[in-house]
Amino acid sequence: MSNPLRLGIAGLGTVGIGTVQIVQRHAGLLKQRTGREITISAVSARSRTKNRDADLSAYAWEDDPVALATRDDVDIFVELMGGSDGAALASTRAAIAAGKDVVTANKALLAHHGHSLAAEAEEHGHVIRFEAAVAGGIPVVKALTEGLAGNEIRRVMGVMNGTCNYILTRMENAGLPYAEVFEEARQLGYLEADPNLDVGGIDAGHKLSLLAAIAFGTKVSFDAVELEGIGRVSIDDIRRADDMGYRIKLLGVAQMTGRGLEQRMSPCLVPADSPLGQLQGGTNMVVLEGDSVGQIVLRGAGAGAGPTASAVMADIVEIARGSRISTFGQPAASLATPVPAKATAPAPYYLRMELSDKPGALAKVATVLGEEGISIDRMRQYGHADTSAPVLIVTHKTTRDAVDHALGRLPATNVVVGDAVAIRIETV
Amino acid sequence: MSNPLRLGIAGLGTVGIGTVQIVQRHAGLLKQRTGREITISAVSARSRTKNRDADLSAYAWEDDPVALATRDDVDIFVELMGGSDGAALASTRAAIAAGKDVVTANKALLAHHGHSLAAEAEEHGHVIRFEAAVAGGIPVVKALTEGLAGNEIRRVMGVMNGTCNYILTRMENAGLPYAEVFEEARQLGYLEADPNLDVGGIDAGHKLSLLAAIAFGTKVSFDAVELEGIGRVSIDDIRRADDMGYRIKLLGVAQMTGRGLEQRMSPCLVPADSPLGQLQGGTNMVVLEGDSVGQIVLRGAGAGAGPTASAVMADIVEIARGSRISTFGQPAASLATPVPAKATAPAPYYLRMELSDKPGALAKVATVLGEEGISIDRMRQYGHADTSAPVLIVTHKTTRDAVDHALGRLPATNVVVGDAVAIRIETV
Repeated sequence: MSNPLRLGIAGLGTVGIGTVQIVQRHAGLLKQRTGREITISAVSARSRTKNRDADLSAYAWEDDPVALATRDDVDIFVELMGGSDGAALASTRAAIAAGKDVVTANKALLAHHGHSLAAEAEEHGHVIRFEAAVAGGIPVVKALTEGLAGNEIRRVMGVMNGTCNYILTRMENAGLPYAEVFEEARQLGYLEADPNLDVGGIDAGHKLSLLAAIAFGTKVSFDAVELEGIGRVSIDDIRRADDMGYRIKLLGVAQMTGRGLEQRMSPCLVPADSPLGQLQGGTNMVVLEGDSVGQIVLRGAGAGAGPTASAVMADIVEIARGSRISTFGQPAASLATPVPAKATAPAPYYLRMELSDKPGALAKVATVLGEEGISIDRMRQYGHADTSAPVLIVTHKTTRDAVDHALGRLPATNVVVGDAVAIRIETV
Repeated sequence: MSNPLRLGIAGLGTVGIGTVQIVQRHAGLLKQRTGREITISAVSARSRTKNRDADLSAYAWEDDPVALATRDDVDIFVELMGGSDGAALASTRAAIAAGKDVVTANKALLAHHGHSLAAEAEEHGHVIRFEAAVAGGIPVVKALTEGLAGNEIRRVMGVMNGTCNYILTRMENAGLPYAEVFEEARQLGYLEADPNLDVGGIDAGHKLSLLAAIAFGTKVSFDAVELEGIGRVSIDDIRRADDMGYRIKLLGVAQMTGRGLEQRMSPCLVPADSPLGQLQGGTNMVVLEGDSVGQIVLRGAGAGAGPTASAVMADIVEIARGSRISTFGQPAASLATPVPAKATAPAPYYLRMELSDKPGALAKVATVLGEEGISIDRMRQYGHADTSAPVLIVTHKTTRDAVDHALGRLPATNVVVGDAVAIRIETV
């Protein structure tokens, strides 16, 4: 294995340039660790003339990423363009057909086409690695695929969109409403061009679907991820949840249950003193639970040039060392087609409502909950100046169905002002 | 690679039996993930007749682990006996000479003989993997060797002895003195037969020396680890540190500095609201810092049958998948001989002393500190009933030498009662 390993890098944004910089800066270190020289043969991006923070003059330039992907002097096609289709898909397909290994940071591409791409790569005896696609610099794909390979995985959880966690913790710490912090984040350049990718939970949902495929040996099924963004999280709920000892996170959860594969990305309450609850700002956290290992928590930067390029390089080093692990940890042909769970697993719920100032109001609400089989763990009624009082309820474990039924019946009690809010409490 | 991979397991304590149980319980899962059957050919332990929590009747029995290690029907020698020399060393050597790969959970063996064993294994074209030797179920060897392989490592830190962290957090939460909690831990069976392995920091020091070798590409040099146990941590310091916003942890730190390789395992103060500060009970945590990735934090169970066997299985799966990574992440012959740093890197220090109730007492102490070039960040004097008052000082960054000089001069001031205490504050 003393021949150089030659890269073709498509996409020269922050991550692409970050990768070029590591290859240049750590040539000696990388050779010591892999036994091979790692070199760059060619690069590609939309604009050749843009000023970039690296000297690219030694590399061939390709305007067309497909041409880059199929060059004879490229061993690994490094896809850092992004996008679920278009050039990213075409060039990745071309690279595989031309007998290249692929390293990608593209969660959207794999969430939509991961299964067929993995099958194509394996047919040609090649590998696709994607550490950088999930939780940036955190080596979570490796931890799950390899580090926990002796475990039946019970559950995967994660805060995997730094922008959403930034917005939620900023709302909490500054006491600002969602719309205001959203605008701040936009001005700081934290949001994708289509902000719904971030705040709608789509980006984090892509990542969750990739981890679920590895964890449960199933085909990637992003379409089955239950998605709810953070747009409806109010500063009131953040404050009230805090009063009850919780924080609100955009939390991804994947688990295999008797009812099928459950995948959801939605605002959840988690205990304020848990590792997930303590996570502030743009940092990511993934929690892996296995039958032997128990709970493993990984924390680190989920985005940014350095961390993401670090993950890209981990995959390149792995291939340089001769490791050939199937894309999702087992041959694509052996991945099962998952049955999506029709209902989410039972959980405690947080309920918030405004009760009118009438005798027996609370009794009416409690009666509805009791009739739906929902029992109350904790309840708190706040002092009030006007004609209604905020009431918080933490339930014992119940089903989403029961909660929805109960919420549906509340208007008829004539004691609840406006809409009641229900948020799942995830046991971590 | 469709031939079965055959294990010989030496040592049938909780981890050995935990490993047997995973192989039996997850035969199908392991085959899906590796493409091979993983089987057990033979086992070995001190007592054949002891009751164990697994059916071993299908496996050959060897009284002598060396005989086990050299059997023709063994591909991987799984060493779970423990001990830095004796049977563990002899059988590991024998296995390597007989052309076997080795998976071990034995930190003492590798801390003392890791370099020569790695060199011998590589000479024979074989590998030694040791995920289970460091921080139990946390896949930290993999994260450092592979996940962060594109980084120049800046610093490795860790709370890697669960018993010590249990003792310190129990002292803190119950307000009990060290001796009492030590006795509790002994009765609960948390301590090694030689408790100094735990509370003297030796076990955690072994682990740190292995991570340092990977991180900095140097030969394992356990003898150069500066070791200080937790025996002198007082409940007073735990309480006072808490007042100042810190927790006391037995913290391992390895970093390459201009003065050479610094490796220390000693009680340190860390911010109470940092991930390390929040770590309670027997859980382990490792913090890895790289030039590109920034800071990665890993948390999980550091001991126990399930978590440790999970790590053993990760190594077995890795070998079954055909990965052949050098023991310390690069060929043993290329590991540098580290120059141990003569002094630890500058840091803030926590100082606690009793000052006599005399005018000008504090001024005399402040003068000594100033003359030694130590500047004060925060100071707190407590109310007192008798003739002396507890005083806490948090310094700005200074050297251990300056602190030691200052402490040496305090008795001559005639205002300090008893010995002053100084504990390093690690910036995390």
